Amino acid sequence: MDYQKILEDIYQEILPFANKGEQASYIPALAKVNPNQFGIALTTTSGETYSYLQAQTRFSIQSISKVFALAMALSLDGEDLWKIVGKEPSGTAFNSLVQLEVEKGKPRNPFINAGAIVIADRLMTLLPDPDKEFLGFIHALSGTESIDYNLEVAESEREYGYLNAAIANLLKYHGRIENNIEDVLMFYYRMCSVEMNCIELAQAFLAFTNHQHFDFGGYKLSSSKIKRLNAVMQTCGFYDEAGEFSYLVGLPGKSGVGGGIVAVHPLHYSVAVWSPRLNSKGNSVMGMKALELLTTYTEESIF
Amino acid sequence: MDYQKILEDIYQEILPFANKGEQASYIPALAKVNPNQFGIALTTTSGETYSYLQAQTRFSIQSISKVFALAMALSLDGEDLWKIVGKEPSGTAFNSLVQLEVEKGKPRNPFINAGAIVIADRLMTLLPDPDKEFLGFIHALSGTESIDYNLEVAESEREYGYLNAAIANLLKYHGRIENNIEDVLMFYYRMCSVEMNCIELAQAFLAFTNHQHFDFGGYKLSSSKIKRLNAVMQTCGFYDEAGEFSYLVGLPGKSGVGGGIVAVHPLHYSVAVWSPRLNSKGNSVMGMKALELLTTYTEESIF
Amino acid sequence: MDYQKILEDIYQEILPFANKGEQASYIPALAKVNPNQFGIALTTTSGETYSYLQAQTRFSIQSISKVFALAMALSLDGEDLWKIVGKEPSGTAFNSLVQLEVEKGKPRNPFINAGAIVIADRLMTLLPDPDKEFLGFIHALSGTESIDYNLEVAESEREYGYLNAAIANLLKYHGRIENNIEDVLMFYYRMCSVEMNCIELAQAFLAFTNHQHFDFGGYKLSSSKIKRLNAVMQTCGFYDEAGEFSYLVGLPGKSGVGGGIVAVHPLHYSVAVWSPRLNSKGNSVMGMKALELLTTYTEESIF
Amino acid sequence: MDYQKILEDIYQEILPFANKGEQASYIPALAKVNPNQFGIALTTTSGETYSYLQAQTRFSIQSISKVFALAMALSLDGEDLWKIVGKEPSGTAFNSLVQLEVEKGKPRNPFINAGAIVIADRLMTLLPDPDKEFLGFIHALSGTESIDYNLEVAESEREYGYLNAAIANLLKYHGRIENNIEDVLMFYYRMCSVEMNCIELAQAFLAFTNHQHFDFGGYKLSSSKIKRLNAVMQTCGFYDEAGEFSYLVGLPGKSGVGGGIVAVHPLHYSVAVWSPRLNSKGNSVMGMKALELLTTYTEESIF
Repeated sequence: MDYQKILEDIYQEILPFANKGEQASYIPALAKVNPNQFGIALTTTSGETYSYLQAQTRFSIQSISKVFALAMALSLDGEDLWKIVGKEPSGTAFNSLVQLEVEKGKPRNPFINAGAIVIADRLMTLLPDPDKEFLGFIHALSGTESIDYNLEVAESEREYGYLNAAIANLLKYHGRIENNIEDVLMFYYRMCSVEMNCIELAQAFLAFTNHQHFDFGGYKLSSSKIKRLNAVMQTCGFYDEAGEFSYLVGLPGKSGVGGGIVAVHPLHYSVAVWSPRLNSKGNSVMGMKALELLTTYTEESIF
Repeated sequence: MDYQKILEDIYQEILPFANKGEQASYIPALAKVNPNQFGIALTTTSGETYSYLQAQTRFSIQSISKVFALAMALSLDGEDLWKIVGKEPSGTAFNSLVQLEVEKGKPRNPFINAGAIVIADRLMTLLPDPDKEFLGFIHALSGTESIDYNLEVAESEREYGYLNAAIANLLKYHGRIENNIEDVLMFYYRMCSVEMNCIELAQAFLAFTNHQHFDFGGYKLSSSKIKRLNAVMQTCGFYDEAGEFSYLVGLPGKSGVGGGIVAVHPLHYSVAVWSPRLNSKGNSVMGMKALELLTTYTEESIF
Repeated sequence: MDYQKILEDIYQEILPFANKGEQASYIPALAKVNPNQFGIALTTTSGETYSYLQAQTRFSIQSISKVFALAMALSLDGEDLWKIVGKEPSGTAFNSLVQLEVEKGKPRNPFINAGAIVIADRLMTLLPDPDKEFLGFIHALSGTESIDYNLEVAESEREYGYLNAAIANLLKYHGRIENNIEDVLMFYYRMCSVEMNCIELAQAFLAFTNHQHFDFGGYKLSSSKIKRLNAVMQTCGFYDEAGEFSYLVGLPGKSGVGGGIVAVHPLHYSVAVWSPRLNSKGNSVMGMKALELLTTYTEESIF
Repeated sequence: MDYQKILEDIYQEILPFANKGEQASYIPALAKVNPNQFGIALTTTSGETYSYLQAQTRFSIQSISKVFALAMALSLDGEDLWKIVGKEPSGTAFNSLVQLEVEKGKPRNPFINAGAIVIADRLMTLLPDPDKEFLGFIHALSGTESIDYNLEVAESEREYGYLNAAIANLLKYHGRIENNIEDVLMFYYRMCSVEMNCIELAQAFLAFTNHQHFDFGGYKLSSSKIKRLNAVMQTCGFYDEAGEFSYLVGLPGKSGVGGGIVAVHPLHYSVAVWSPRLNSKGNSVMGMKALELLTTYTEESIF
């Protein structure tokens, strides 16, 4: 498969969408990013990497970090993890408080903010230095030591993070958080603030294609657990567009409001795409299009 | 792969669950079924069929019929179908009216009752004799002409179908139904009343494994559409347990309150299992367990 | 108090609102009413009646009928009535199905449609000829035998009544309705279809001012029960504007989508006003204004 | 009317309920109150005060403070106040976040926590020293200078106040709060922590019986405004039991989780009752019973 040509062809085809959508602007650090950028990188299980355009420009991975956090928590807690967070799609916007109230504070899945905050709290309880461990895990996955938090972004998230503070307080009210709320939120914001580029993300997610033993930074996951983690991405990875992404792309994946999307074709490849302009559901417009075309051209959805 | 042995081993392993759960009892016709039955059948794309125990006992396919109806509607309307029904997981119990109100009557997906009723209405609008066409489609898929509606069950569903009547009236109120409400509901109930056995269901769903051209009873679907239909099963096929099934089994599938579950391993096989006792989410206890073990033993989830 | 002058002054003051709002148009019979009409009548406990403009033009009383039905049911069942219907304000639009689902089908109060349908069902169970009894009760209250159902309106309500049918089916599903759904709805629609004018309504509601023994058409209510019925009007009589009406007018009252509003000043007077144009909450624009001015001028709110 | 005898008779009659219900225990300061206490005081517009049992024991007035805050805000902002808070009954539990989300953060009324927090914020914006002003207002209303905040209670509320913090953050997210969240919450908690006895409360609420010019501590309210404030108490004063209180008692009133209830009979009297044991809706069991009997015996509901 000539992936390089496919990536370039895809870009030509999605050019008409280059100005559609708006980048995230709820914090200054995201609002000031040049929205007219696009990068893509694909890494196969046999080791080749293909990329195009701004694939080496780092951006805020935001909610993509929730996959890393889930992998760590799953490695540490095993199936017990599901006692504190569900694995059902949320069926509503990613920041809804309603569902939390209805379900007594147990978040529906690890990829809505409430679920990710509960997992951040769990990692804080389990790990002596969660900040260092989280970064170390990403370094191991991506093979790149220079990846780091953007503390300015994290601080900015905290400053404007009234909704997440509301969620965290509601979780605490329902007894779902053990540690200090402010500490948990800051750790959560730091994880979201990690900056990576498409090549680094594709490399990091190669670990989830299940073609090798998963053992990174001290965190091990069985082949069965990797499959299950992919299953959670498949059903819950795209806020209220999980069904749409599954329908159009047919791969497990995860998006972030920074404009990044990663997807995994089990046993074949991982792919990361980035373009800051988002659709109304908070997912990258060009990113969604690019991945739809990728699995259409290659006929490589999982179905 | 010695599927016959696997099916038999699975049964031994799930025997401890043989008395767990209760069969559906909301209509007499379902309540009087002997709950202590179990059948399973698996058909590979190379043509072999394996089965065990009551695999030739017909049962009420109930919501599994929604896949057949969706396939017909998708064949007829193409992507326009998604203007009248969504494809996002529902995130709440399958019969909730709340989401309908919030979303102005557009059902979230074709597998909740509201979505299936809208599709029943659509088939009535498009087809001169929807009853005959629906049965003919199943005959073509399964290769078995003797499959039929159970009109007694359909009538019983109608008699006790206050919740579905509420849903249909709400859909009509929101302008989502074209035909007479009673007629649409009766067609919907007839589709749910179809009786098939595991071998027939496995054969019928072989068409959705995407290993051949899909052209049955005059209804054609491209390979891309079959993938997409599988994607909808993956995210929406199990009411409020879609995430759980995806997590434990890792295959697109669909369940019914009659105790049947079908699943598809694209390009490999289709499988149908039946056992009437249901868990609290309305899915067959032994059926869920059996399919979890099947993909665990064979390492054949899609992820 | 020169009520006649007050009524006339009020009309002059609210003239600027004469073209505000739209009449109900969900059924043809209501849509064809000339919207530019206004009538008002006030009857004191000492027996005088004051009226102005179209106070003798009959109109569809619609939800005002729910007060009469409640009075009958309260007379028959006493405090046991509250086992089947609540008495808390609904806090949402009058036709919401959400609350019914949340509260397992027990309607929050007798003045939302769900509650009125449950009361209609109860009257059908208790009375041999509910149609005749209901009309007889109104004849006795108003002293006017010519008041009648408008069967064309009732039939039209039924024809377009998908939302009420949804509500009734949901109530039946939750075991809240004993009789045949269609029969209950038709009785409910007939009650809503009664046509009265302002003078007749003011006379009928004089019975609820609690200045005399309540014994009409065989239905008796103690002074305490009348107070309680007024309390229910006070907190629940105006859909999602109960607080607003209580705030601006300060009297127990009830409105209908036909544009009528009645209010009761305990021990002093009853008043009925009619003007078909409705605000966004479904209450008569000029009617609300007129009653606000009435209690402002007379300083006769209950507070 | 021999109110003294009535108060004493009422107590005898409600003795069977003396052990029903549980006192509030969400903070230690409330949990440690002796629950087996009861006090009542009634002050007439002609100046007599009647009381019985622990009418001179101060307790935490909690949500009763919301009436004082509303009176101050209404005096300062007039009808503009309703731009930031509604006046419709909430129809759900007093601390629900759901309604806030649905209505974009505008609290439904000033007596749910969200509404009271918005009013606390407003007072902080308008007043140079809100703590001093609030206490001064109560001193003026009650004629008692020794009434004070219980800062230990306020601090305890803050410590366990996750739900209120969630609400405040959600309000801030929706742009409904101007000041620092922590400051607003502390002011809110201080207001709730004020300690008064029944005699002092009855005296303070005499001002709302509308028998004299309202001018206390520099805050003036017209007779019309007092009526309207009573209307808000009538429809919104008892969480999800507003309808029940209106039905059984028939007076405007307000309860607090400290076990206090005040009610106002316009132009006649104010009454305060206290007993710490609460029913499932958070209102004093004996308090509700006592006031029901009071208006039954005296036939003095407003209806």
